[in-house]
Amino acid sequence: MTQDENDIILLAHGSGGKLSHELVENRFLPFLSNPVLAKLDDSAVFEVGGRIAFTTDSYVVNPLFFPGGDIGKLAVCGTVNDLSMSGAVPLYMSLALIIEEGLPMKELEQVLQSIKATADETGTQIITGDTKVVSHGQADKLFINTAGIGIVPDDINVSGAGARIGDKIILSGTIGDHGIAIMSLREGLKFSVPVESDCQPLNKLVQQMLEVSSTIRCLRDPTRGGLATTLNEIATQSQKGIFINEAAVPVKEAVRAACELLGLDPLYIANEGKLVAVVESSEADKILASMKRNLCGKDAAIIGEITAEHAGKTIMKTRLGSSRMLDMLSGDLLPRIC
Amino acid sequence: MTQDENDIILLAHGSGGKLSHELVENRFLPFLSNPVLAKLDDSAVFEVGGRIAFTTDSYVVNPLFFPGGDIGKLAVCGTVNDLSMSGAVPLYMSLALIIEEGLPMKELEQVLQSIKATADETGTQIITGDTKVVSHGQADKLFINTAGIGIVPDDINVSGAGARIGDKIILSGTIGDHGIAIMSLREGLKFSVPVESDCQPLNKLVQQMLEVSSTIRCLRDPTRGGLATTLNEIATQSQKGIFINEAAVPVKEAVRAACELLGLDPLYIANEGKLVAVVESSEADKILASMKRNLCGKDAAIIGEITAEHAGKTIMKTRLGSSRMLDMLSGDLLPRIC
Repeated sequence: MTQDENDIILLAHGSGGKLSHELVENRFLPFLSNPVLAKLDDSAVFEVGGRIAFTTDSYVVNPLFFPGGDIGKLAVCGTVNDLSMSGAVPLYMSLALIIEEGLPMKELEQVLQSIKATADETGTQIITGDTKVVSHGQADKLFINTAGIGIVPDDINVSGAGARIGDKIILSGTIGDHGIAIMSLREGLKFSVPVESDCQPLNKLVQQMLEVSSTIRCLRDPTRGGLATTLNEIATQSQKGIFINEAAVPVKEAVRAACELLGLDPLYIANEGKLVAVVESSEADKILASMKRNLCGKDAAIIGEITAEHAGKTIMKTRLGSSRMLDMLSGDLLPRIC
Repeated sequence: MTQDENDIILLAHGSGGKLSHELVENRFLPFLSNPVLAKLDDSAVFEVGGRIAFTTDSYVVNPLFFPGGDIGKLAVCGTVNDLSMSGAVPLYMSLALIIEEGLPMKELEQVLQSIKATADETGTQIITGDTKVVSHGQADKLFINTAGIGIVPDDINVSGAGARIGDKIILSGTIGDHGIAIMSLREGLKFSVPVESDCQPLNKLVQQMLEVSSTIRCLRDPTRGGLATTLNEIATQSQKGIFINEAAVPVKEAVRAACELLGLDPLYIANEGKLVAVVESSEADKILASMKRNLCGKDAAIIGEITAEHAGKTIMKTRLGSSRMLDMLSGDLLPRIC
């Protein structure tokens, strides 16, 4: 098939018939091909044994392309990161597209290229997929679902419920970058230092952390709802208190400025390449030092600890020295952020 | 939370914050709860070993509710059936929802009830999920993605590539029911005998067939694109010819009448509860007899065979006695059929 400017996705590309097959064979397989996917059976079949981690996420980010990434990179990173937060080594992914009729083929191919590049970077393979096309106006350009499968090594047990009193809380870097990058683009805001999404795979950082210490109790990536919501989830799941020090939470100057302008709190803004780790106090410095050696963790910081008081709640010492309860996100600040 | 008529999905239900948590805890968990899902970690973790089948499908059917099923039942059956077509025993599923703001909570709950009932019927569990909400007009009510995981027993090897010359082709029942049920509803057609979707799980039928014979080479469910497209896929994958006898293909009278009225060919209409099996000729009658004992296979029939001639193509002897090539579906007869 030749590529031209008028080359767009048609309803018939989702029919399951001839055009669907051409789309898969001429557009998808060249980007994504691997021996399992190429069989094109109804399911992909592979050998595996042990503890399996399984996760799914749909991505509806608007716009599709943004500084620091696109919906394809996001769809791979998001699922790889969810697997990593269970301590799993991500292996395989499914890819399901819901495309609005009329999407330029060029944009779809850009997204596929990005999916392939990110999958390669993370060492994962796309082994099964699905494409649906809906009429113009029944979806917005492109929605992607990825489900992922990984292996959890025998000696790894990380869960939001695992936090213990006295444990330290490490954040892997600056917060709010993804949300502010998307928001700035949508609102047409310009900053002297442009804000890029932090969208990145964290699987290698996590593997490195798990090699350094066996006392990592909980890993979680603060995506939708931001850091404040993630901390609340850990507090609820573990039924412990969480105390954090606002001054210790890294925030980029441009993100802070944008938040002030837009009336937003970086603690509630989505991230797509950061993690929160709850670790045994005595190993925290060692784990932190190891994280800082990885580019994804260079701004990592200890931001707080697990407490016996305020079980199920998150308390923050503010920059002004006062303490206040940090609740989960209410309402929706930024729809379609991921 | 109390249920009232004004109870609808809001953008904030997809924020990842408070309303998202309430939605999951108060609406989803009561329907779907099981020990793995209830942990609410970023991934579900379970133990498994051997050959794993993995598949994904998004469901965008319009309307959400139709005679014989709804999008929830479809989303479970579709993925269970894809796993079954690999000879796998389906075990676990993910559930990802993309909801248009404003969807009545009552409709969502009806869909969830249907998902739970169908999952129970198939012996599968929903162990991980995701919910996104998009603004009014950016999606059409509700899109669902399910990914599924199953175990392929050691001695089972079914694949589209496995068809051998002389093998018989068995169809498990009447074709066109699902597509015509949806189409009739959309077009407001009324028939003296109403057509219901055949949407049903096939995993038990498949298990039964695999117990009866070890010579089942290929299983495939003729969904989008219909029987004609599925036969073409098998012909292409196996690089063998396929010969079928139109008179042997079971079609309900009402479906045939509707097809004539609408100018459609039942061979190209989607099914959601039928399978095509390619089996060793000498075992075909035994397998057929066993299928007929299952309600899902009561109308099963041998419709043709695998040939050396016309490799990669499907030839049909028509009711009139002539022979013609049966191509894959071109264009899209019925968008958003599943």
